[in-house]
Amino acid sequence: MEVLQILHMNQGNGETSYAQNSKVQGKILSIAKSIIDEAVQKLLCSNIAPIGSMGIADLGCSSGPNAFLVISDIIDAIHATHSSSSSSREFRVFLNDLFSNDFNTIFMSLPAFYNQLKKEKGDRFESFFISAVPGSFYGRLFPAKCLHFVHSSSSLHWLSQVPPGLDCQAGGRALNKGKIYISKTSPQCVLDAYSLQFHKDFSLFLKSRAEEIVGGGRMVLSLMGRSSSDPSTQESCYQWELLAHALMSMVLEGLIEEETVDSFNAPYYAPSEEELKLELENEGSFTVDRLEAFEIDWDGGAEISVVASGQRVAKTIRAVVESIIESHFGKDIMDDLFRRYAELVADHLSKSRTKYINLVLSVIRKD
Amino acid sequence: MEVLQILHMNQGNGETSYAQNSKVQGKILSIAKSIIDEAVQKLLCSNIAPIGSMGIADLGCSSGPNAFLVISDIIDAIHATHSSSSSSREFRVFLNDLFSNDFNTIFMSLPAFYNQLKKEKGDRFESFFISAVPGSFYGRLFPAKCLHFVHSSSSLHWLSQVPPGLDCQAGGRALNKGKIYISKTSPQCVLDAYSLQFHKDFSLFLKSRAEEIVGGGRMVLSLMGRSSSDPSTQESCYQWELLAHALMSMVLEGLIEEETVDSFNAPYYAPSEEELKLELENEGSFTVDRLEAFEIDWDGGAEISVVASGQRVAKTIRAVVESIIESHFGKDIMDDLFRRYAELVADHLSKSRTKYINLVLSVIRKD
Repeated sequence: MEVLQILHMNQGNGETSYAQNSKVQGKILSIAKSIIDEAVQKLLCSNIAPIGSMGIADLGCSSGPNAFLVISDIIDAIHATHSSSSSSREFRVFLNDLFSNDFNTIFMSLPAFYNQLKKEKGDRFESFFISAVPGSFYGRLFPAKCLHFVHSSSSLHWLSQVPPGLDCQAGGRALNKGKIYISKTSPQCVLDAYSLQFHKDFSLFLKSRAEEIVGGGRMVLSLMGRSSSDPSTQESCYQWELLAHALMSMVLEGLIEEETVDSFNAPYYAPSEEELKLELENEGSFTVDRLEAFEIDWDGGAEISVVASGQRVAKTIRAVVESIIESHFGKDIMDDLFRRYAELVADHLSKSRTKYINLVLSVIRKD
Repeated sequence: MEVLQILHMNQGNGETSYAQNSKVQGKILSIAKSIIDEAVQKLLCSNIAPIGSMGIADLGCSSGPNAFLVISDIIDAIHATHSSSSSSREFRVFLNDLFSNDFNTIFMSLPAFYNQLKKEKGDRFESFFISAVPGSFYGRLFPAKCLHFVHSSSSLHWLSQVPPGLDCQAGGRALNKGKIYISKTSPQCVLDAYSLQFHKDFSLFLKSRAEEIVGGGRMVLSLMGRSSSDPSTQESCYQWELLAHALMSMVLEGLIEEETVDSFNAPYYAPSEEELKLELENEGSFTVDRLEAFEIDWDGGAEISVVASGQRVAKTIRAVVESIIESHFGKDIMDDLFRRYAELVADHLSKSRTKYINLVLSVIRKD
């Protein structure tokens, strides 16, 4: 469970912070917005939420502007639907992320957020109670049947741990040599280990939420995925492949040891739509309302030069993965590593506009 | 409301941190423990908590070891009573403090805390769900009727703001010249302004909690107070008087301006038992079960020299008040100020063992 204690988006508001480098995740949120809106609207119209209290959770909220963007979206959607009814409900909004997440920065922005709510929504803002629930969503986080709407964005592609059994060849020699995730040359046993870990994690996620969400409650999940059934397709892993190239270029110059690269593996998995459907079917507590795939530019779709794109992609990835990379490789190589990475990304984007595939899933808790 | 955004215990785990300098508050907790235990026991035996979910809040939890000490105490008390019953309840534990509180440090210690709970209590630890609710307790923090037990320690003597009207003499000349709180020489208008602010804040606290706590629910509050009806008695304000002396000695040496001292006032009030009773009676939602006063040594009762005591008292006070002192006087004078303060405290303790008065109040929400 080591990963769960190390992984966190870069803290604060500085140049390498997640707050300053989360445009891709913001883009993903804006794409998912209409699906969130629709789910909230259907939920409120279904009257399953008991009058007096409705539980809303954002799982993997991170810190920075996106944390509030999601809540704002959900509150806007509630307000738009809710204003037509005369009842006065209370909304409990829970922000969740790992224990190491920078909740202090979120909390410092809350007074301004509450003031804005008050300005926009009038006195009704008072019925929103925002709290933080730290911990891994791969397990129970909330009491039974206390949630009505759950959202999670850009989080479920993070595994609870690096899959065990990646050195699966007889003799123990690392088969994923010089790689840090799945690649075109990964042997089947590496692909299987990643797929199995995702299966374990995602099914535990569903089982936990099934206990916490009331019958008729809804969940909108968006995560990195792939449109191909092949897990080594470029759209699902090439950003990691290039990071591995940057690391290996430092091995060649004697700046880091090859063994250190071989012993690092990303706790990440980009599933296919079919894998998601299969897990949902097997777990059995949720009905799929919508499942859609969107293409997202690596740089969030900005119209800038490939060099600038390379830098932006490197900053975006750095803000997310620096904590786990740094805990393995040490602080000193970070600037050099991400400079090399920016160059490799720029070079790649000049030849091929590889995109991420983002999957958005809207499900209903069965009664 | 400026105070609410500035006031926070010193963050982290360093030499001047609250985590390292909160022995007095820990002592206060240990004294209140039997009263907390009794209240929890009576609550659980009264069967008012619906089976399935019980809400517990610690208001003004701060960070550092005391934050967990309170929860541990409450969980122990629940477990001791609860183990005799066969029902399996879920416990929602809410940690509250101001937006600027160091919640990150609390959250980083949560995995170890959960592990310890699991070790001590076995699988039943899984029914505790700990979350954080940032914001001022002078106002609503929770949905209606969701709490069964509320605790607050060493927090309610902090006012929501410096009382307005402290420059109450005709002509506008500061009457509290060279003072930063109530003292023996304070004119009546200063005493009245402080008393009125406490009345406003504490009645708003009671009104807010009355909405959040179910009928039969309980609240144990401990705060600095006084046994005398005179608000300028040494036991309620002399720690501030000595801090004012330290500041004035720096004025004499030209290190700070006298006007800067005159324009600073502590957002603090140590009420009498009678004032608490009067507010409870006026608000009307709570019945008093117990109200007791305890003497607490300034240094937490350690058997050390007066010089060491002076240093410990200075560190304890610094960990609590540095954020508001620093925002007014600037960072540069802090070390010098608290060195002078330690000497003045040591000198005072060599002549007189002034003690704090801590009031502990146990109340029941009327049905």
